[in-house]
Parts: sequence; structure tokens; C-alpha cells
Amino acid sequence: MAKNKLRVMMLGGLNEIGKNIAVLEYGEDIVVIDCGLAFPDEDMLGIDLVIPDITYLEKNASKIRGIFLTHGHEDHIGALPYVLRSINPPIYGTRLTLGILENKLAEHKLTNKTKLITVEAGSVVNAGVFKCEFIRVNHSIADACAIAVRTPVGTVLHTGDFKLDVSPIDGSMMDVTRLGEYGNEGVLLLMCESTNVERSGFTPSERTVGHSLDHIFLSNSDKRIIIATFSSNVHRVQQIINTSVKFGRKVAVTGRSMINVVGAAVRLGYMKVPENVLIDLNDINKYPSEMVTVVTTGSQGEPMSALYRMAFSDHSQIELSSKDLVVLSSHAIPGNELLVGRIINELYKRGVNVYHDNQEVHVSGHACKEELKLMHNLIRPKFFMPIHGEYRHLMQHKELAEFLGMDSNNIFVNSTGDVLELDKNSCKRAGTVPSGRVLIDGYGVGDVGNIVLRDRRHLAQDGLIVVVATVDVEEKTIASGPDIVSRGFVYVREAEELMEEVRRIASKVLNDALDSGVTEWTQMKNSVKENLTKYLFSKTKRKPMILPVIMNV
Amino acid sequence: MAKNKLRVMMLGGLNEIGKNIAVLEYGEDIVVIDCGLAFPDEDMLGIDLVIPDITYLEKNASKIRGIFLTHGHEDHIGALPYVLRSINPPIYGTRLTLGILENKLAEHKLTNKTKLITVEAGSVVNAGVFKCEFIRVNHSIADACAIAVRTPVGTVLHTGDFKLDVSPIDGSMMDVTRLGEYGNEGVLLLMCESTNVERSGFTPSERTVGHSLDHIFLSNSDKRIIIATFSSNVHRVQQIINTSVKFGRKVAVTGRSMINVVGAAVRLGYMKVPENVLIDLNDINKYPSEMVTVVTTGSQGEPMSALYRMAFSDHSQIELSSKDLVVLSSHAIPGNELLVGRIINELYKRGVNVYHDNQEVHVSGHACKEELKLMHNLIRPKFFMPIHGEYRHLMQHKELAEFLGMDSNNIFVNSTGDVLELDKNSCKRAGTVPSGRVLIDGYGVGDVGNIVLRDRRHLAQDGLIVVVATVDVEEKTIASGPDIVSRGFVYVREAEELMEEVRRIASKVLNDALDSGVTEWTQMKNSVKENLTKYLFSKTKRKPMILPVIMNV
Repeated sequence: MAKNKLRVMMLGGLNEIGKNIAVLEYGEDIVVIDCGLAFPDEDMLGIDLVIPDITYLEKNASKIRGIFLTHGHEDHIGALPYVLRSINPPIYGTRLTLGILENKLAEHKLTNKTKLITVEAGSVVNAGVFKCEFIRVNHSIADACAIAVRTPVGTVLHTGDFKLDVSPIDGSMMDVTRLGEYGNEGVLLLMCESTNVERSGFTPSERTVGHSLDHIFLSNSDKRIIIATFSSNVHRVQQIINTSVKFGRKVAVTGRSMINVVGAAVRLGYMKVPENVLIDLNDINKYPSEMVTVVTTGSQGEPMSALYRMAFSDHSQIELSSKDLVVLSSHAIPGNELLVGRIINELYKRGVNVYHDNQEVHVSGHACKEELKLMHNLIRPKFFMPIHGEYRHLMQHKELAEFLGMDSNNIFVNSTGDVLELDKNSCKRAGTVPSGRVLIDGYGVGDVGNIVLRDRRHLAQDGLIVVVATVDVEEKTIASGPDIVSRGFVYVREAEELMEEVRRIASKVLNDALDSGVTEWTQMKNSVKENLTKYLFSKTKRKPMILPVIMNV
Repeated sequence: MAKNKLRVMMLGGLNEIGKNIAVLEYGEDIVVIDCGLAFPDEDMLGIDLVIPDITYLEKNASKIRGIFLTHGHEDHIGALPYVLRSINPPIYGTRLTLGILENKLAEHKLTNKTKLITVEAGSVVNAGVFKCEFIRVNHSIADACAIAVRTPVGTVLHTGDFKLDVSPIDGSMMDVTRLGEYGNEGVLLLMCESTNVERSGFTPSERTVGHSLDHIFLSNSDKRIIIATFSSNVHRVQQIINTSVKFGRKVAVTGRSMINVVGAAVRLGYMKVPENVLIDLNDINKYPSEMVTVVTTGSQGEPMSALYRMAFSDHSQIELSSKDLVVLSSHAIPGNELLVGRIINELYKRGVNVYHDNQEVHVSGHACKEELKLMHNLIRPKFFMPIHGEYRHLMQHKELAEFLGMDSNNIFVNSTGDVLELDKNSCKRAGTVPSGRVLIDGYGVGDVGNIVLRDRRHLAQDGLIVVVATVDVEEKTIASGPDIVSRGFVYVREAEELMEEVRRIASKVLNDALDSGVTEWTQMKNSVKENLTKYLFSKTKRKPMILPVIMNV
């Protein structure tokens, strides 16, 4: 490893959405920025979550001076409960970020083992040779920050996720001044998020949603109003409360994460709720329904979320009808469109009025093209690495930087695990470190890999057939069986002939093998597999998994 | 069944997208309008296609006077190759519709068994007591029609899928005059499609895409241009050819369905291609790449489509690079967003420029709100049944009709299988007929049902464990095994202890059962299942399928 060089690598968040994690290393010191999870692709059957491979951090655990969190979204903090099993550095974050993290750590019984250090925008933390400053940005969660890291070779600015909100709900606009001061001082490397690089213009202010809510409440004064949004969008929930107060409504909250986050936000002072406005969900029927607002989870159509249960008449406290209006204050994340559509259909079936997928009841939390240009112009870095995006986002972010005049040789579209090596004047790729994805399935961390997933896909596609037989190799006879068990292949009662033929073929193959003196299990099994696969494909055009189990007497 | 009444029912196309099929019955006569397929929901694992349950038509096969096709899209004709195995009435459609159908019938070796009768817009067909007139509409496929059915109790107008294109590519605007004449004469029942009812305004003309293509070709004159679109969108392909000719480019076609449809369209005169413009895909390298346009399938990201293979460097004739521009002249159907996104990322990785999801290179083929209002005002029916849409679309279409002044008692938001009974002055629901979905998996039609799908989902989620043992009930001992085989559950090499414990538990459970005199296989198996499920859930929080196979010596 080169001396007097800064090494910068992403262990996740490049060529993918989620599991964001950045690592900065110099000599004997490492700082980590964020440690998020990703949601499984649709072909990762049965997988609950995906976290980054942190082998590199485990091998260098003694060097890690801290994990610095930009904000409290799952894709930035969600891997921590798993990662903290093998490394345990101090964790720095703003109050709300750590408030949300604390809930997670408690669930994983990690509260006492973890050192959390609360900072605020403007705080500077010394971490070995590094000095890390938290800088206020706007985002779809309160208390989000960018992080500027002063290193021995120059400053690295990591934007986290951000937008510019010129009329922010909590009064704190992105600190363009501090960012600009860093820019004037000189920034070696900018690591800037890329989520919305394909969208032109500026992302509208969160406040525009408040105006829409006012209009919706005004024209639905005879209805109970149920609003679904991301629980972590504290400012959105604040605006729902504000509008409710304006119209004299009480507000109830449902959904586990919504209750958790609203609780934390109120406790920590991020949400201001006048007295006697929040009511318990069990009490909503004590008020006229048109005087009630319900804030709920489920805006992405998540099965078993509170909104899902309401839509399918499975919520113990809320029964929806034509006296209700449901507002989806959200936009379906790619892959969730069908789930969201299913909920909307169910709501219509109950006669519920629905507002959805409407610019006016949702705004994005990420910087569009013009805001990205603003960031680049404030920072004017020597080198630039686009982060947080699929390949096409990273490439378009590169093009945006080139459009602003940056030399394409100074822009690095990296892959997860690629190492950048920097000194005061240069930046170049210098090999890779281990990286990848670790799949979480139930309690299992990493015990489901490609082979298991391949089998699940095979089973999902065409099901399986188990062929069981006991053979007597000495006597060259089948002592028992073959028995045929099938699952997920065909409805057996209506395919008796087919299954009988399968049994007959298996029997013949085994007898032939025994007769010709085959004693190798593997050979016998392969022969059963091949013959049955061929026969079944010719009859059904399907290839169920064939599992021969052959036992000796 | 009531005499002198018209019975109208949908066997598909209500509360769903696809498998559109309408049935009109009077006395001893039945006509069917369309017979389409649907694509499987994401939880129908391994299923290829979904077709309507036509039990009712099979039982009344002798009554069917014809199947009338509105246009050649899969969701209107795609079930025919399966349905024609059990019923075989004459099929009426316009030339292009039947041209596309002929390809399908040939694949299923049904060409000689099927009676196809070509009609054109304006044709009237006598079918028992019914008189069916084909009326020109615009749609994203050429030669689309609405169908007016004169019945003994009044006229039923079925719009098919339509839009109004006031500058149509082939010069044939929707025949608003003929529709209006029917309206003036009096229409008993309007059956009108609902796909785009959530969109305000008018759908733009197909011709606007041509203008966009001109601009794109002009500013990419140094590139080879690859355009992906639906093969059935003959007018879109015509415009791509027109623009290519304008810029002196040759056009090659790739993708099986694209080659089929373009072939049929040229042969039948629906597409006009100047001589020496179409070239064989094998010859594209004989021309400078910037003088070549390639028209391809794969606009929905379909795995193994021509565009997919190009993106993943798996296409034998086309290797993409930074000298190529790819245009996705399409919009991702809900559920396909991730597939399309994957292709776009791959294209970026090859340095390809991509135009996508851009209003200007695609327009819808369905009527938006204002066009639906136009239809309602032309027809002014006594009764109205919204068709072709999910529940929310049907309900919003009802609201649209009410907005135009229709009495809500005259509007019927039905479910598949519901029967409407009409005479000259009344319309009411009158029971149901069998309906539902039949799943196609390989050669299997209907042999995969809920039980098989439930097992596939279980296997997909957590995999399976097979427990095999031979027992000697007389001696109360295990003669052989238990052997444990697992697939899709956990990577066994790294979970040896877990699997050994599974074997130990299975062995104990079986021995206990034998000792206590249990001889019922079912009881023994259930005991193995319960104990292993409990143990594995406690260890892994997963519930693999447990398949015990116990044989007697």
C-alpha cells in the first residue's frame, strides 16, 4: 500500500440503488461514511435484505476511527445491526439519525455494545488523521448532512443524499455558504450522489406539498382523510399535522415504523405538535370521522403494512368506506408499481376516494440536474467520483460534470470495491478490495449464495420431483420403491398417468443400472435425472428439478 | 334462461389488464368478441401465459356463430390457439389482424382446422340473429375496429381498444361519422375500453413521434440508430422507415416477432417501403454504420429479446458501442420497469447513447379522458358497461359517464362472468357464468392451479428439505437412513452442523414413533415435519418445505 496516499473506496452504492458505504483510508486510519442496506432484486427469491461485504473493514478493524452517518434512511444506516457483529467503532450522527438507529439497535439487542456519539450540523470530529465536519443539507428526512473530511492530502466532500430546499419546513436550508467556503479553500475530491441526475430542473420544495394538502383538505371536509407516506419523512408528517390543525382535525398514527419515527421525532423536538392533536388510534371513533386524519405506512404497497391491511379489510381499528379519502403522498419506487396498483384497486372496491401518483402530493428528496450543477459549482473539486446510482446515473453525472467544464480524466466512474489513490495533485485507480453483497434471509447472514438462489429459481419455475428407492446392490434388485413425490410441478390427481410413467421409467433405469453392474450412486442418480428430464420435457415442456434419493438396504 | 332477452357477459378483461373476451347471446345464437391472453402476475411462478376459462362457450359451442376480432394484439387474439382446441367457430377480422393470427395458428399447427374470414372496416356480417359491423378506430396497431352488433333488442357497441388520431399515418381516422350514425339511430349498450381513463386530455397523434424521430436522426447523423418498439405497431415502424429514407439510411429488422409482423405488414400492403431500403441483418456491415437503422424487439426489456441480447453482447450480428444510439420508442408497462432499467444500464456500460421514457418518442394507443367523452357523446347509449381495465379504471370510467350526465343506475361495473340481461328498455344483472383464469405452463393448459403455485411460492421462498428413511415396522427399527437432501435452503457445506442436527432430530422422531407403536405413515411424517419446522425456524427464521418420504422394507 502506497504511503502518504489517501485511499478512497465505495463498498456499495455504485451500479446499484442502496447499500451505500464509503471508506477513506490513510496510513493507520480509516473512516467510514454510511453503512446502508439494499432491498433484494426480484430474482433473489426469499431474501429479506442485502448488505455490503465488509471483509475489508473486518481485516482492518483496528484502524477504523468511526462510522459517520449522513442521515437516517435504511440505505444509509440499515446494514449497521449486521455489520456491528464483527466491527464496533464509534458511530457519529445527528440526533434524529441516531434516534432512528437506536430503535434498530434495540431490536437487535445491540444497544449496550454500541458507542453512539451525537453531533450536529457544524460539528467537527477528529478521527485519527481525519477531521470530519457535518454540513447541513436538505433531504426527505430531517437532520441530513453532507460530510467534509479533511485529510493529509486535501479535503474530500461527500454530499450524502441531498436537495436544495429554499423554503425548508424546519427553516434550515442546505448550508451553501459552508459548502462554498470549502470550495473556495479547495476540495480534492467530490463524492456526489446521482439519484435524480436524469431529471432536469430543480426538485420542488417540500413546502409545495403543504399547499396541496391544504387544497385537498378543503375540498374533502366531509371525509376522514388517510395519508400514507414514508415514516422517515418527518417534514411531510409535520405538514400533514399542520394542515390537520388548520382544519381542526385530530391526528392518529398507524404502522409500526410510523409510530416509532413520529415518537422519536416528537421526543427529540423535530416535530412540533400542538397539545390535544395527536390521538390514540383506538380513540378515533370518539371523534366525527370528518374531524380525523390518519397518518400511515404502506405508501409503497408493502404487504402487511397498515395501509395494505386497511385496503384488504384486515386492520383492527380502521374500516374504510366511501366516507374516506386516501392520499398516497409518495411515488412508487421502480419494482413496486404493481403492489401500489393492487392497493389502489382494493381501495376503489371499498368506494374509497384515492389521490395518488400526483406531483402535487409528493416531491423527491434528491437533487435534480440544476441542483447537482449548483453543488459542482460550489465545490469545484480537483477530482470527482459520482456515487449512489446505477451505472446510467453515474455516467450521466459524469456527463453533467463535463458539461460544466471538468476534464473527463479527473472524473472516476468506479465500481464497488475499486480503490482510488490520491495525493495532493493526483488521483488514480489502484486495484480493488473485496466487495459484493451479503444476503440476509431470516437469521442467516450470508448463508444463502448463488447456488441456493439458483435452486430456488429452478424450484419456483417448474417445481420438483423426488424419486426415492432402496436398492439391494448385492442382489441387484430394487428392495423398495421407487416412490415418486412431486411438489410445484403439476396437480398430481389430474396427472396420474404421467406420474405412473415417471415411476415406470425410474424403475426401468434403476433395474437396467443394477443389471449392468452399476454400483456408483452418482451414475445411477444421473441416469434417473437424465431420463426423467427428457421424458417430462417432451410431455410438458417443463424441467422440474429431479431429486433421486437412492439408499442401500 | 329468459326468452327474448339479450345476455351480455365478459369472460375476461374486467378487473384485470388483458385476456379480453366478450360474449353476446340471444336465444340459440352467440357471438364472441376477441379472445385474448394475459401475462402472468409476478406471483404466478413459472407460468407462461394466462387465458380465460371458456367453460361456458364449450357448453354452448353449437350456438357460437363466430368470433369477431377488433385488432391483432395478444390481449385480444392470443388465447385463440388454446381455445380453438375445444371450440371451432369461424373467425372474422381485418386483414392485418388475421395476418398476425395466421402466424400463431401455424405455430400451433391449427392452420387447416380454422376458418378465417377476412373483413374490412364497413363490412357487415350476419351471425344468427346478430348483424355485426366493423367500424374503423385508431390504435397502436393498424387495421383496428370497433364492432357494432345489431341484436333483436337493440344495438350493442363494443369499442375494442381505440384512440382518436386526427393525423393518422395511414390516412384513416376513426370513423366518428359511422359511430355517430349508430348513436343517432340509438344504441342500447356501450361497451367501452377504460385503459387510459386516468389520463386527462387527448392522446397525441402517432405522427408526433415521426417529428421527434426526424430531430433525433438529424442530431445523431454520425451514429448507427437502433430503435426498439412493439412489433405490432406497424405505423411506428412505418415512421421509422420514413425517417430513415429521409436521411438516406438502410433499415434492418431483428427479433422474431418484428420480422414476422413487418413481413406480414409489407405483404398485406400495410407498410410502404421504397425499394432497396430494407436490408438483411447479415448485410448491415456492408454499409457505413451511420447509414443504418435497426428496428428491434425488446422495448419492454424482455429477456432473450433482440435488444436484450444486444445489450448483453449476446446478439450474433450486432455489437453495440459508443457509435450507436438506442431509442426505446415505448413506455414500460407496469411491472417491467426493472427489466427495462437493466437494459439501459447495460447499454450505458457499452458506451451507447440512450433515449428512453420520453413522451416524444412514444405515444399511447388508448383513449384519454377527452376521447372517452367523445365516444360517449357520439354513442349516447341507454346503458353502459366499462370494459378493459382494473377495478379502479372501470370505476373512474363510470364517474366519467356520470359527469357527462348518465344515470348511475344505467352503468354496470361488472366482474368477469357476470351476466347482463337486456331487452329494449331494461338492463339488469342476471347471475353469473363460469369464468376465471387458466394457466399455461409449457404444454400444460390448466394443469397448474392454486396448489401447485402455492408450493412453488413456498419452494421459492425457503427451499426444501427431503427426509428419506426406510423403516422396518415389524422390528420397530430404521432400516436405512434417515438421509437428508436439501435444495434452496442453505449452502450445505457451510451448514454441516445444522444438517447433522436435522438428521439427528428426524432419526429420534422416527425411533420414538416406532417405539410407541405408530404404524401410520401420515402420523410419522407429520411428526417429522412439525419437529423439523420448529427446529429450523428457531435456528434460521425460515420455513423450508419439509418432505418426509418413509418406505417400508
